[in-house]
Amino acid sequence: MNFQDVVMRLERFWAEKGCLIWQPYNVQVGAGTMNPATVLRVLGPEPWNVAYVEPSIRPADGRYGENPNRWQQFYQYQVILKPDPGNPVELYLDSLKALGIDFRQHDIRLVEDNWAAPALGAWGQGWEIWMDGQEITQFTYFQQAGGFDLNPVSVEITYGLERIVMVQQGARAFVDMEWGHGITYVDVLLRSEVEHCVYNFQVANVERLKQMYDLYEAEAKSALEAGVLISAHDYVLKCSHVFNVLDARGAVGVTERARYFARMRDVWCQVAKAYLAQREALGFPLLKHKQVTAVPDVPAIDPARFPQQPARFLLELGVEELPVQDLDGAMEQLRAAVPRMLSAARLGFNDVHIYGTPRRLVVDISAVAPRQPDEERVVKGPPADFAFDKEGQPTRAALGFARGQGIDVSALQKREYEGKNYVVAVKLVPGRSAAQVLAELLPELIGSLKFAKVMRWNASGATFSRAIRWLVALLGDQVVPFACAGVVSGRVTHGLRPLDSPAIEIPGADAYLDVMEAHAIVVDPEKRQQDIRTQVTALAASVGGYTPDDPVLLREVTHLVEWPTPMLGHFAEEFLQLPQEVLIAVMKKHQRYFPVMKDGQLLPYFVTVANGRYEHPEAMRHGYEEVLRARYSDAAFFFKADTGKKLEDFLPRLNTLTFQTRLGSVLDKVSRVEKLVPVLAGMTAAPDSEQQVAVRAAHLCKADLATQMVVELTSLQGTMGAKYATLSGETPAVAEAIYEHYLPRGAGDALPRSIAGTLVGLADRLDSLVGLFAVGLAPTGSADPYGLRRAALGLVQILSEKGISLSLREAFRTAAALLPVSVAESDLLAVQDFVTQRLRGWLLELGYRYDLADATLAERADDPAAALATVRSLSEWASRPEFAALLTAYSRPSRITREYAGEFPLHPEAFTEQAEQDLYQAVLAAQQQRASVEDVDGLMAVLHPLAQPIDRFFAQVFVMVEDRVVRENRLALLQRIAALPKGIVDLTQVLGY
Amino acid sequence: MNFQDVVMRLERFWAEKGCLIWQPYNVQVGAGTMNPATVLRVLGPEPWNVAYVEPSIRPADGRYGENPNRWQQFYQYQVILKPDPGNPVELYLDSLKALGIDFRQHDIRLVEDNWAAPALGAWGQGWEIWMDGQEITQFTYFQQAGGFDLNPVSVEITYGLERIVMVQQGARAFVDMEWGHGITYVDVLLRSEVEHCVYNFQVANVERLKQMYDLYEAEAKSALEAGVLISAHDYVLKCSHVFNVLDARGAVGVTERARYFARMRDVWCQVAKAYLAQREALGFPLLKHKQVTAVPDVPAIDPARFPQQPARFLLELGVEELPVQDLDGAMEQLRAAVPRMLSAARLGFNDVHIYGTPRRLVVDISAVAPRQPDEERVVKGPPADFAFDKEGQPTRAALGFARGQGIDVSALQKREYEGKNYVVAVKLVPGRSAAQVLAELLPELIGSLKFAKVMRWNASGATFSRAIRWLVALLGDQVVPFACAGVVSGRVTHGLRPLDSPAIEIPGADAYLDVMEAHAIVVDPEKRQQDIRTQVTALAASVGGYTPDDPVLLREVTHLVEWPTPMLGHFAEEFLQLPQEVLIAVMKKHQRYFPVMKDGQLLPYFVTVANGRYEHPEAMRHGYEEVLRARYSDAAFFFKADTGKKLEDFLPRLNTLTFQTRLGSVLDKVSRVEKLVPVLAGMTAAPDSEQQVAVRAAHLCKADLATQMVVELTSLQGTMGAKYATLSGETPAVAEAIYEHYLPRGAGDALPRSIAGTLVGLADRLDSLVGLFAVGLAPTGSADPYGLRRAALGLVQILSEKGISLSLREAFRTAAALLPVSVAESDLLAVQDFVTQRLRGWLLELGYRYDLADATLAERADDPAAALATVRSLSEWASRPEFAALLTAYSRPSRITREYAGEFPLHPEAFTEQAEQDLYQAVLAAQQQRASVEDVDGLMAVLHPLAQPIDRFFAQVFVMVEDRVVRENRLALLQRIAALPKGIVDLTQVLGY
Repeated sequence: MNFQDVVMRLERFWAEKGCLIWQPYNVQVGAGTMNPATVLRVLGPEPWNVAYVEPSIRPADGRYGENPNRWQQFYQYQVILKPDPGNPVELYLDSLKALGIDFRQHDIRLVEDNWAAPALGAWGQGWEIWMDGQEITQFTYFQQAGGFDLNPVSVEITYGLERIVMVQQGARAFVDMEWGHGITYVDVLLRSEVEHCVYNFQVANVERLKQMYDLYEAEAKSALEAGVLISAHDYVLKCSHVFNVLDARGAVGVTERARYFARMRDVWCQVAKAYLAQREALGFPLLKHKQVTAVPDVPAIDPARFPQQPARFLLELGVEELPVQDLDGAMEQLRAAVPRMLSAARLGFNDVHIYGTPRRLVVDISAVAPRQPDEERVVKGPPADFAFDKEGQPTRAALGFARGQGIDVSALQKREYEGKNYVVAVKLVPGRSAAQVLAELLPELIGSLKFAKVMRWNASGATFSRAIRWLVALLGDQVVPFACAGVVSGRVTHGLRPLDSPAIEIPGADAYLDVMEAHAIVVDPEKRQQDIRTQVTALAASVGGYTPDDPVLLREVTHLVEWPTPMLGHFAEEFLQLPQEVLIAVMKKHQRYFPVMKDGQLLPYFVTVANGRYEHPEAMRHGYEEVLRARYSDAAFFFKADTGKKLEDFLPRLNTLTFQTRLGSVLDKVSRVEKLVPVLAGMTAAPDSEQQVAVRAAHLCKADLATQMVVELTSLQGTMGAKYATLSGETPAVAEAIYEHYLPRGAGDALPRSIAGTLVGLADRLDSLVGLFAVGLAPTGSADPYGLRRAALGLVQILSEKGISLSLREAFRTAAALLPVSVAESDLLAVQDFVTQRLRGWLLELGYRYDLADATLAERADDPAAALATVRSLSEWASRPEFAALLTAYSRPSRITREYAGEFPLHPEAFTEQAEQDLYQAVLAAQQQRASVEDVDGLMAVLHPLAQPIDRFFAQVFVMVEDRVVRENRLALLQRIAALPKGIVDLTQVLGY
Repeated sequence: MNFQDVVMRLERFWAEKGCLIWQPYNVQVGAGTMNPATVLRVLGPEPWNVAYVEPSIRPADGRYGENPNRWQQFYQYQVILKPDPGNPVELYLDSLKALGIDFRQHDIRLVEDNWAAPALGAWGQGWEIWMDGQEITQFTYFQQAGGFDLNPVSVEITYGLERIVMVQQGARAFVDMEWGHGITYVDVLLRSEVEHCVYNFQVANVERLKQMYDLYEAEAKSALEAGVLISAHDYVLKCSHVFNVLDARGAVGVTERARYFARMRDVWCQVAKAYLAQREALGFPLLKHKQVTAVPDVPAIDPARFPQQPARFLLELGVEELPVQDLDGAMEQLRAAVPRMLSAARLGFNDVHIYGTPRRLVVDISAVAPRQPDEERVVKGPPADFAFDKEGQPTRAALGFARGQGIDVSALQKREYEGKNYVVAVKLVPGRSAAQVLAELLPELIGSLKFAKVMRWNASGATFSRAIRWLVALLGDQVVPFACAGVVSGRVTHGLRPLDSPAIEIPGADAYLDVMEAHAIVVDPEKRQQDIRTQVTALAASVGGYTPDDPVLLREVTHLVEWPTPMLGHFAEEFLQLPQEVLIAVMKKHQRYFPVMKDGQLLPYFVTVANGRYEHPEAMRHGYEEVLRARYSDAAFFFKADTGKKLEDFLPRLNTLTFQTRLGSVLDKVSRVEKLVPVLAGMTAAPDSEQQVAVRAAHLCKADLATQMVVELTSLQGTMGAKYATLSGETPAVAEAIYEHYLPRGAGDALPRSIAGTLVGLADRLDSLVGLFAVGLAPTGSADPYGLRRAALGLVQILSEKGISLSLREAFRTAAALLPVSVAESDLLAVQDFVTQRLRGWLLELGYRYDLADATLAERADDPAAALATVRSLSEWASRPEFAALLTAYSRPSRITREYAGEFPLHPEAFTEQAEQDLYQAVLAAQQQRASVEDVDGLMAVLHPLAQPIDRFFAQVFVMVEDRVVRENRLALLQRIAALPKGIVDLTQVLGY
């Protein structure tokens, strides 16, 4: 089948399934999603089933036609099913079969991929669909668009046509494919691909494109004002395309990018709103095509048919492929929840086993009691002497209570509560059958599972990690009937995807594991994981290598298959010339392949794990290798392009990369960081040699952002900077500092080791924080598009963990002075407060008590290193037995004086009482000692001698006397004590104060 | 079949015919042609067969979804066949059959429509294809693109999908059509159509769109500089779309439009050039798919098989549908050429009949002699005395000559030439058979036919009005074999299109007419015309009406059918509320229907003429009525919109209509015309009342350009202006002047009758001429995008024919003073020269001798009225016997003096001879008389008395004597005579001078 055959076959297939066959849009789009036939039609309640081709333009993906399967233009085949037909994945797989794809020869996999289009205010959940490791389709349950929850949810299926045709034709690259009648992809599209790349990467005029963007946006807005939403939509698409070209051209900085997206989203959300209003005004005309599917009845339970002895229970929740994290999370929750649930329901059980595969969550209980024990339930009524008259006859109160409880008044009993007699109704509630109880509890159990992100899919409105498609619930050999998420439980499960998910009837709970194993499904993840580990190790050994231990990857792969079939693949040795970090990153991140190493060096092999049992895995092995070849070819493309010049030569390009409109280009930022570094070096007393390294590293620290490798694989920023620096002849110290200035990149990441890397990292973060706050881009709510929370956290982590003492206030002021914008005092205060909040969070995360953290931060927030030392020391003190007494002693002078704002003058000569005199002397000594003290230990040493004088003072002296002069003099003395911790901690914040 | 079924069926059909199935372009385009798969791929020698859907955007065609079949967006199905497969029309008709269209129920017609895309430097020849009067397809043989001749020629077939689906579904409007699965066109596209109309007509911001245009153009140019042609192409398409929106918005004046087109063409022609260069550099890779079709052999002639007696001859040239003009033209040429050709070939014949239908040209000769008579051919040899020696023996010269002529030396004869004997070779050349002669002559005959515009279609490189597809050539019952345009003659013709053009074998020339008649083909146009006239008259009478005599329309309809079947149609009476001019114009121009009138008023009927014999014409009658309904609905849409306000209220819109960038808006032009009118009135002594009317008419003269009716039907400019003026309460005189100011609109058109209309028309033309010359837009070569030749011709026609005396020089100067730009003296001279050239052309067209015209223009070009009077009078004089003598008399003094630049002083006292004296006296008298003379008659009266004195002078006086003083005095006298005609005519230009 050639390209056009595939298109025509898909059109016939989906037309027969009731889809409208639509046409590509006549505006350049990045995806078929942006065609109004998708992104507008998914809004609102009307049904809509549509299928169409869409040429999709992603300028940044251009490789001048040199990559086997990555072009800036490719053809999508887009399908929208609204509402969910109940079996969209199976329909999709049928369409592949209609194209002649044989699932016994190809490994088809659904790999979590949650989709979001920030410019459209849209997101959804679903998968990349892989064929032999190659992404051939994007499959998404649309959840939101234009900021609106979608109801019903639409299923979006986006085929990558070329990749499918390539497999069918055994083509090794787009260019080898036949479009039709002997005409190849080279013949029809190669030149245009190459030229579009040249235009997008080299020719497009940044200034003119920005002008176009502004004009489009203005037209979109005036179209919206005139109520003309479709023209507004067209212009948003044009904005989006121009933005993509600017991006490919390298002309959009990180912060500017966020602003562009916000601008597009703003307009487009209005388009969506206008569209919904319009459809509503039209009365949602397509609702007349809505097909109402009856919700199936849940059969009644006949307890007599269920085992009367303890019996094995089996619940299988059949789902579409769960994300790896969600599978783990759900199993963990079930492990805790099932016993809790059964206990709470007073249903006896033993041996709960929880299993899971991507397509099923399994609860296997070796025995569940046939029923609950009977239960005596006592209801308290009126007081006994009020319930019976003097003749012992029941009063109206007793009669009423008995009637209300549905028992005869003669059956009322008396019980004593808190020494007083009451009538009570005692009822024996017979235990219900396990089937009844389970039928009630299981939907709750399922509903109680939590996921980081859930989705809706059908009219039930249920939310779950992925769609629930079947339920098996067997107690012994009987079905426990219940309904959940629009599905009714039964005894039919489904087999492996490669075998067409055959319906499999489970005779009884006991048989389940054997039946599944017989159908090539290993439900126990530990067993799968062990299988994989063993086989992967053996395969690596077969070529003289090993796979480095990588539990995260192993777990992920385990959770991607129901029956693992590891196999060894090879890649061309020429790729070994690329940095190993790149090769491994690509292999693991994109493909979940296990790298094969020998003596710390990568071998040209990998191990991947197919899902299913195969007789002829050659085709899929070839596929796995091909997809890696394409990925590596991409990496090689970048590496070659990047190493064509020195790292320093990338600097001028940074000038076209806007950091933020008012803050200038990334190059401007770099030059500020370069200036800030020596100042910080001075403030932190860094050695001169380190300072020199740091200045050079600062100069180069962002240069890799302009390299193609980093433009493509942002996660390699810093890594590539260091690599390219070394290749450009920089010293190892400079390379190291470049790498380290990004550390820590997130929670749990390492800190910079070198002083130079530390200095550059601090300077970079200080500049971002002060600059972005100054231009009004402080994070709001939970949104933090510029990553300022991470920057602030990094700052405090580095300073505190590395014990670098630095006044943030001074540092911010210095950074502010270098900015091209003026920084208001309020902005500086806001930054400081923001950083303090991160520091507080960090201290809490380190396990310090919040009160001690607050006590510390009240005085030491400006210097995170000091803060950490302080809270550490304070915590130690707080755990000592004597601390309570010290705190109490301190709290009395402090409490009594804290309502007075000013400081009273102290007149020692006016003290009359001995205790006053003594305390005054003690305070004098403390003050003197305090002057040379900076830490908590010292403070405690200062406070300790005061405890007794304070006690005595309060025992013998009444402070709040009538005589104002005397009173204020005493208060003045106490104020001196209260002031002692100032500058170290604020003890008033400590619990127990 | 619903919309998507039709698309899928067409894709299958064309895929099976070897076409690549392509996709719509992702840039808004006005037609599928602009997809690179057409407009680039048609360039160069490579074969290319492709088919695809293309949504086509024509903003100006938007009707807010209210018109039944005209929307600003519709879907084309585009097919390119390169090279011509030989039967493209038949393939196309097969595709319609594949869609289930029954040609016994629907009238399919090919109606001349030559396509040109000025922005692409492209043009082609072909047809609109009509189904029941509705255009459903555009069919073109591409001749040029990007300014390049296309070789091979591509066949372009562009279906209007909606119109085809409408017929199949019996839908009365786009909105009633089903797209698929019960979803209608309303459901999928109506809202977007309405909104795009609102945007294009009301919202689009003119300034921003113009900026977009400039940015696109700049990007296109820099892409071209970088050798990136596809991006340049994309931007040209974007320019084109933005231009179309500006146009729909009414923001582009006539002159600005031309400039936009020129800008787009400039860039796009470079794209085309770059594309060709690129393909060539690639070695034209698709040439490997070229299929070489063998040119059929022409059988040898066996004269023995042909009639040995005079026999009937029949030539039928089978062509694809000829344009009406070309059919007439070809028949006329054949009528002259055939007898001439046969005579020249010495082939006896009688009774030549020439017939024709749209698909055949027929030569029917009742008898052609079986062969040429024999011919004696004499070849002159050497002189006799050189050929034979004294012994009478042949010399080597004679022997050589005889050998050269292939005869024996003894056969040489002697003949006398100019009194001298030569040997000659006398050969009897036997006459050749008629078959041989005809086989040689017929290709020449066909090749000799001339057409206003020809096309190429196949590898033969032949040019003709339309493709030649078969040749029948029969002498008696034998085929005269020859090849022409890649076709070999035979005896097979083809029948009617509605009957699938069946192959029909013609047994012999005698049988031809009967066979054709039997197959429902009337080859004699006079017979068809008579049939039509009779039936149309009868059908009109059947509803009590008549059809006005309209020989042009009758001839056109006659030439559109092979078997006429007139039928009566009806249209809704509500449309009669529209101006009759509009209804008739639409009916005739667009549909070639005969209007039915009664007492000068249109009845709600029409007569149309189908091609073929039909049993069930109901469906097609319905179709004819529907298409008129759509046309009238359009007209009503405009009329309603336009009459919603007064004509004067359209004036402000003229301010957004650029006349020319530097000359301002059309409104600016109008205000200049308003100011110019009173001045011209003064110059031409127009009465005050007319001047007032003229000023008001000038104010309103262009207002209708802003009305929708005129935007759509430009030919109604002036007509609608007058109509709307009347409806707005203007006086009949003003309305009339508005209408008339456009007169004459072209060759043969009427001149304005009223003085007011004349004044406005003159002012308008003066302003255009001077203004456009001043800004450097004078016509160059044959290009005249601003119609300045027509303007100048109108100017001189009006002035001369109406006898309005006006100094053009003064008029131009006055017009120049009103312009917003300064006008250089050289520009004024250039305009004058330009107008003089038009005046000269006009005088020649009126039949005046060029010499007399030049003689006149040398003196009177500034005043066309005077020029016409002068040339008329001069022509009269030139035809009189005495003129030659007068001219001779004048020529002697004039010739002898013309080499002297200055004028010699005259000293009468120095004359010595009597003849001198006499002539001097006569000259004195002539000079005196000349002073009061202004015309040719007067001039002749002045010259007449001088004839004799001049003769005598030259007989008796020798002018060029040695004595300089005497000589110059005589020359001075003669100079006075030579100067006499000055100011009236320049007699030196007259033939015979």
